[in-house]
Parts: sequence; C-alpha cells; structure tokens
Amino acid sequence: MGRWVMTQNIYDNPEFFEGYSRLPRSVAGLDGAPEWPALRALLPDLRGRDVVDLGCGYGWFCRWACEQGAARALGVDVSEKMLARARATTAGAAVDYARGDMERLDLPEGSFHLAYSSLALHYVADLAGLFFRVHRALGAGAQLVFSVEHPIFTAPARPGWSVDPQGHKTWPVDNYLFEGPRRTDWLTQGVVKQHRTVASYVNLLLRAGFDLTHLEEWGPSDDQIAATPALADERQRPPFLIIAARK
Amino acid sequence: MGRWVMTQNIYDNPEFFEGYSRLPRSVAGLDGAPEWPALRALLPDLRGRDVVDLGCGYGWFCRWACEQGAARALGVDVSEKMLARARATTAGAAVDYARGDMERLDLPEGSFHLAYSSLALHYVADLAGLFFRVHRALGAGAQLVFSVEHPIFTAPARPGWSVDPQGHKTWPVDNYLFEGPRRTDWLTQGVVKQHRTVASYVNLLLRAGFDLTHLEEWGPSDDQIAATPALADERQRPPFLIIAARK
Repeated sequence: MGRWVMTQNIYDNPEFFEGYSRLPRSVAGLDGAPEWPALRALLPDLRGRDVVDLGCGYGWFCRWACEQGAARALGVDVSEKMLARARATTAGAAVDYARGDMERLDLPEGSFHLAYSSLALHYVADLAGLFFRVHRALGAGAQLVFSVEHPIFTAPARPGWSVDPQGHKTWPVDNYLFEGPRRTDWLTQGVVKQHRTVASYVNLLLRAGFDLTHLEEWGPSDDQIAATPALADERQRPPFLIIAARK
Repeated sequence: MGRWVMTQNIYDNPEFFEGYSRLPRSVAGLDGAPEWPALRALLPDLRGRDVVDLGCGYGWFCRWACEQGAARALGVDVSEKMLARARATTAGAAVDYARGDMERLDLPEGSFHLAYSSLALHYVADLAGLFFRVHRALGAGAQLVFSVEHPIFTAPARPGWSVDPQGHKTWPVDNYLFEGPRRTDWLTQGVVKQHRTVASYVNLLLRAGFDLTHLEEWGPSDDQIAATPALADERQRPPFLIIAARK
C-alpha cells in the first residue's frame, strides 16, 4: 500500500460533493445516520474535554460535541469544500477546523481526550501510521471511537446484492483477504477506498498501543427497521464496523 | 440461545466420527491442519506450564504441549469416543483427559497458564459463561488462544461457494447479524453449530475480563497454496477466526 501516498480527496470532486450534500446524513446531520446512536453510546462524557474529529466533513460532530459541553473541538478534513461549509455553519470559539491529509496528519502530543472519526478511515492507506499518531495525540486514558465501512462490505471486487428469483438477498464475498485499494462508483466514478480486514483494524490498534474496549458490527434496530423497512437488508451483512479503544 | 442447554455431541454420532477420523487433521494431527502454524505462533513458551485444551479430540495438542515441556496438560472433551482414542494413544503421567460439557464445564480457579481450543467453541451456546469460567481458571497474565469457524463461514442459511460461468467463486453471505444455531450437513446430517459475529467473540472476551492481544482471520500462506492449490479459495473469505487474549 506504500504506493498510495495521499488519501484520495474525492469530496472536492464536484459530482461527488453534489451527491454527498444530498445524502440524509448531510442534510439531517448526525441524526440522519442510522449508526449514530451506536457511536454515541460509546462516547465518554464530553464536558470540559478536548475532542478531535478525523474527517469532520460539515462539522456536525464538532458542533454536537460543544453542545455536550466539550471545551474544544478540532475538526480535520482534507476537503476544502467540506471545511468551507463547516466554517460557514459553525459559530463559537470552541470549534476549530483545519485542513489535513490523514496520511501525514500530525497532532500535538497528549492533547485530546477523545479522537472520533465517522466513515473516513477506510480512505486512509497508512492506517498504522495514523493510529500511532492518534495514540500519541491522546492523553492517558483517552479514547478513540470510529466507524468505517465493514470489511465484508468493502471486500468484493464487484460489491452489491445478489437477488435470487424468490427475492432473497445475499452479499457475495470475494477477495476478503486481499487488502488494498477498491475502486467503486459511489456518487461518482472511481472512488478509491482501502479494504482491510476486521483483524487488521484490530491488530493495527493493538500495535499502536491501544486497548480494544468494544467492537461492533452495526445493524439496524427493530425500531429503525419499523421506520425504514429497507434497512432490514443490512442485517444480512453489516454495512459498518464501529470500534472503541483506549490509550 | 438459552434453549440450547447442552452442546451437541455430534462426535459420538457413528457416521460423523467415521468421517472425522479420516480428515487430514485426524490422521496427521496438528500438522494436518493448515491453520496450526498460525495458532502455534500465538502460544507462549510452554515449559513448566499448565495447559488445558477445550475440545481436545484425539489429544494431539495435549501430547504436543508435553513434548514442548508443559508440566501438565488437561484435555477436556464431550465425546467418549474421542477421549477413548486420546487415552489409547497417550503415554505419560503429564496428560489427563476428562469428559466435560463446555456448557457447564467447571475448572479449578487460577490453575492454568494457557487455555487452548481448536475449532470447538462454535459448538458452544453459552460462550459468555464459558469465557467467564475459563477466565477464572487462568492465573494472572495467563492466555487464552483459540480458533473457531469464521462468522462469514457460519453465517449463511445455505453455506457454500457460488461459482459463475467463468469459474469465479464468491461466498454469498446472509443472516450475518442473526446469531444462533445453524444446522449443516458436514460429515453427517444435522450438525448444529452456533453462529455468532466477530464482534460477539471479541466483546464476550472483553466482558469476561480478558484483554484482546491478537485477532486473526486465517488464510493460507503462499507456500501452503503452492503445496495445495485448492487452498487458494480460502483467501476469498477466511474459513477460521483465531483469537488470543490475556487475563
């Protein structure tokens, strides 16, 4: 993976940005993401805490963290467009936004109580390096909580449901143990994600010095399926992996 | 899962036992199992140590542990037939075999340096209970190292490869987030395994008080594929999950 030296900045692609800005999670914020309640349940009390959001997008999480009483929230993103909108919709001195490429991002040592990231780290090629740098940026006992697309979701060469004549859906898996870039056409053509196994996410964290505290293969709750029946398919294979770890 | 109060003792089914006894791993022992090098790499130095093997089968691991200098090896299995053969092929006072149902197995407190298990825990319904009892049976700093069938492998209602007209294989996944019994026809009809997610294996360990030290989604090495080309398919989806944890 050493060839992939910079995270693809697909968010500044006009077609992608246009499509992304219309997603429920872009319009409705945190509550537009069905996995948000699961992520939120893993977060510590943020009152008086310093927080960094890796891949902050429109800044929804940074603003929410400050509403919860966080002392300071730093949102980092590689996309100028995302940051421009984040800045335009954020008031208050407790939130800062900074442009940063996750492949080389350097954060000050021991300066955060929580590092958070939502659906961003599967774009990062040098995740081992990022985990080491995030570990260094956290204080003792601080936490890292993040979501990524689930490896079962990212593995296939041609991801998608297979539907049999009875309408039963399966998710054909191949290439699971072949880690590396996956080119997909989500919102625009040629979006490059990094497929890695569940084991790699976990072992890279452990090697960076983290203790694993929770692993979640996210699926919708009964209530969510009652409100949005199409979500039921996600129980056939989890779309997201959520991990909590402690320094 | 509370309805499943006893682990299915499929190994005492004559047809299953007959088929099992002809598998490479039954004939050739540890070296007949392609995942054994990966398991062995996670084991501590066994010299002078007390070891328990949960689901010991023919006793291959217990005998190997004693060859490595273990002070004592206890092999536990629910199958009388397996234990009879284990006893018949083991000489030496350092190995003991005991019949035990993993659903209620009680081991003396703080008495082992290593708990080991190979492809047995996916038959256990009350894995939370077993992990608590194993944790109690280990001394401080002691390890648990085990393999199970990978959840991607156990999830589907009808497990098996799907082969397209070009011969490309995929492993259709469904029911991943529906944990519980899976009835398959491996060696005989009606073998019942317990499907659980990777997340459940990990979180049950953490809740029992273990620290996770390594997670492995096993696939064959290049050398193994060169020797046995059919193994290459296993890289499309991992057949085994291997976990190491520490008290």
